[in-house]
Amino acid sequence: MRLSNTITTITGGGSDGWDLFVKARKMIAEGHHITELTIGEHDIKTDTRILEAMHAAALGGATGYAMVPGIEDLRQAVATRLTTRTGVITTPDNVLITAGGQAALFAAFRAALDAGDTALYINPYYATYPGTIRSVGGVPLAVTAEADNGFLPTFEALDVAAAGSGAKALLINSPNNPTGAVYDRETLEAIAAVAIKHDLIVISDEVYDTQVWEGEHISIRALEGMAERTLVVGSMSKSHAMTGSRVGWLVGPEAAMGHVLNLLTNTNYGVAGFTQRAALFALGLGEDFEAEIGAPFQRRRALAQKALEGQNAIRLSKPSGAMYLMLDIRATGLSGDDFADKLLMERAIAVMPGESFGSAAAGHVRIAMTIPDAPFEAAIKEIAAFGAALA
Amino acid sequence: MRLSNTITTITGGGSDGWDLFVKARKMIAEGHHITELTIGEHDIKTDTRILEAMHAAALGGATGYAMVPGIEDLRQAVATRLTTRTGVITTPDNVLITAGGQAALFAAFRAALDAGDTALYINPYYATYPGTIRSVGGVPLAVTAEADNGFLPTFEALDVAAAGSGAKALLINSPNNPTGAVYDRETLEAIAAVAIKHDLIVISDEVYDTQVWEGEHISIRALEGMAERTLVVGSMSKSHAMTGSRVGWLVGPEAAMGHVLNLLTNTNYGVAGFTQRAALFALGLGEDFEAEIGAPFQRRRALAQKALEGQNAIRLSKPSGAMYLMLDIRATGLSGDDFADKLLMERAIAVMPGESFGSAAAGHVRIAMTIPDAPFEAAIKEIAAFGAALA
Repeated sequence: MRLSNTITTITGGGSDGWDLFVKARKMIAEGHHITELTIGEHDIKTDTRILEAMHAAALGGATGYAMVPGIEDLRQAVATRLTTRTGVITTPDNVLITAGGQAALFAAFRAALDAGDTALYINPYYATYPGTIRSVGGVPLAVTAEADNGFLPTFEALDVAAAGSGAKALLINSPNNPTGAVYDRETLEAIAAVAIKHDLIVISDEVYDTQVWEGEHISIRALEGMAERTLVVGSMSKSHAMTGSRVGWLVGPEAAMGHVLNLLTNTNYGVAGFTQRAALFALGLGEDFEAEIGAPFQRRRALAQKALEGQNAIRLSKPSGAMYLMLDIRATGLSGDDFADKLLMERAIAVMPGESFGSAAAGHVRIAMTIPDAPFEAAIKEIAAFGAALA
Repeated sequence: MRLSNTITTITGGGSDGWDLFVKARKMIAEGHHITELTIGEHDIKTDTRILEAMHAAALGGATGYAMVPGIEDLRQAVATRLTTRTGVITTPDNVLITAGGQAALFAAFRAALDAGDTALYINPYYATYPGTIRSVGGVPLAVTAEADNGFLPTFEALDVAAAGSGAKALLINSPNNPTGAVYDRETLEAIAAVAIKHDLIVISDEVYDTQVWEGEHISIRALEGMAERTLVVGSMSKSHAMTGSRVGWLVGPEAAMGHVLNLLTNTNYGVAGFTQRAALFALGLGEDFEAEIGAPFQRRRALAQKALEGQNAIRLSKPSGAMYLMLDIRATGLSGDDFADKLLMERAIAVMPGESFGSAAAGHVRIAMTIPDAPFEAAIKEIAAFGAALA
């Protein structure tokens, strides 16, 4: 079968970065006990009330084709949410419901790129970013955010990359996966300045916006001159523990949304009405519910901070948000890959090598805070002891 | 916002063909009573047993990220289904679960086309086909299937189009929306010969495969030399009245599916586990259930045949399958557009102009058999009288 070049080059060659995860899963299947700190998914299931709302909607008849832009009530709820949280007046005409945040991200890149166009993204990065750019025929170009700068990108690095590549778009993600960084206003203003200077569309992945433990979440769309050039990716997955339901949204200028709607007709032809109703119900549970979903990560972050206090071999990169910690293990002299592999084999703890998320996270490992507090704390203490013995 | 050329040209300009539908819906909103024969969606809802299975799966914990290729049991069930129905040995490695048939169609075109590549499709056609091709940067080229040839494409027309365009792919759809044609073996063999001659990937949309009222459904994938160059699009929407659930599949060679999986990671990151479990349950209801879902269309087809017997002004194009009838109204001297508009305004019946589905259906109107038998029969009789008065 004579496949397209686009589809055969989506991964960009090489490892997909999940080797350690796969190895750990294999060991578990063989009967080993492994503590897994790898996956960005809550250790709780979707709340039963949300599932009951979904079932009621389905029994009530929300089983036919839903309107492709999304059901009006949910678009309105998302619009209200963004208006409230960011101060940018947002209407349902700015909102399209998508089959998860990933579908919104894909749509955003299709909106921004023709084949051969370059898009910038920040290294370290979430696993799907470069592949998503390649999936629309785009060329991904990583811009390094240095570990020693708190994994924050700089004006200089972005400016050079944009000028050199003629990029059309720039993807950012704050709160950040994998680093836990939350971009401060100064960083976001630098990004905005680059975007305006080089006429870039900014695609802002804000799926962790309810999980900020230090500082505040600022949407770049709220900065001056940015609403007209920003596409915001949102999702119910992380904020409401609805990862499997695949409900997200893309928010942007009304005219752009009109074009993206034509794409959504051809990619998914809408999102199930009953899952949209479930999302609407979940949003109606309000901020207390979102705080409840985020609380375990905040708690475990504090446990980790305490357990790693005074450690020299293993340093906790400032974990300001999201459900991850990035540990700087450079003092051990090992790469993230080697550290993670050794930790798995010798201490039966699985963490993700920083290298899996890009060269900028080399010498680090990512911890997903997605297991209950007691084993989580025990694992962090074990990692600390392991690191100390190495250094 | 400097949007991509790809996204701003998805519709190809001009009307989207749904003007009459929109007009009818507006009249209904204003309080007019309109009989709607426009929409390709069952007049029943998804069976409650399926919804209960979905709810049980959700409560049972199928709310986290599902495996991106689809859950193993569903891939196996689809594989078994295709093996049984087509005789082509199909394994789970040949199957990827998608967010509806449309998502499978999109993935198939991404697999086949790079930007600028041409794909052939048959005119008349389902509304999303050219836009889906444009959504991956492809160039759609319609090949006419003449009304007077039962809306079946010919070797000659396809051969000329493939040779002239250097096309990479060909999309077919049997049983056909909008025409109700079911491609016979001779037609499929002609298509296969063109595909082999020009090294085309054939994308075969078979979502109506359980709705055949005359003849038999033959999958082109079962023809000699075709399994290795065919991607089959399937769906639960039409066969199981699950339109809103958005569960479908793409079936093809294992190596190709490996590449398409990389795309699905970046488009939707999987399909909700609970809807996949619902689909698995629905497939388990067996052929009797599928026959039950299709029966109303078969019944209404017979009613229409009887009502239109001996009519000269309005002739029923051989309706061999699916949930549609195509009426040839050329003897009235009106275009499909004018006939449909006049019928709406004078008799309060909404049908789709053939022109909405491409020039090859000019002078026809499409009837969706998606209202209960009694009003359906009355509407057909009314259309017959209306046509007779015009001629």
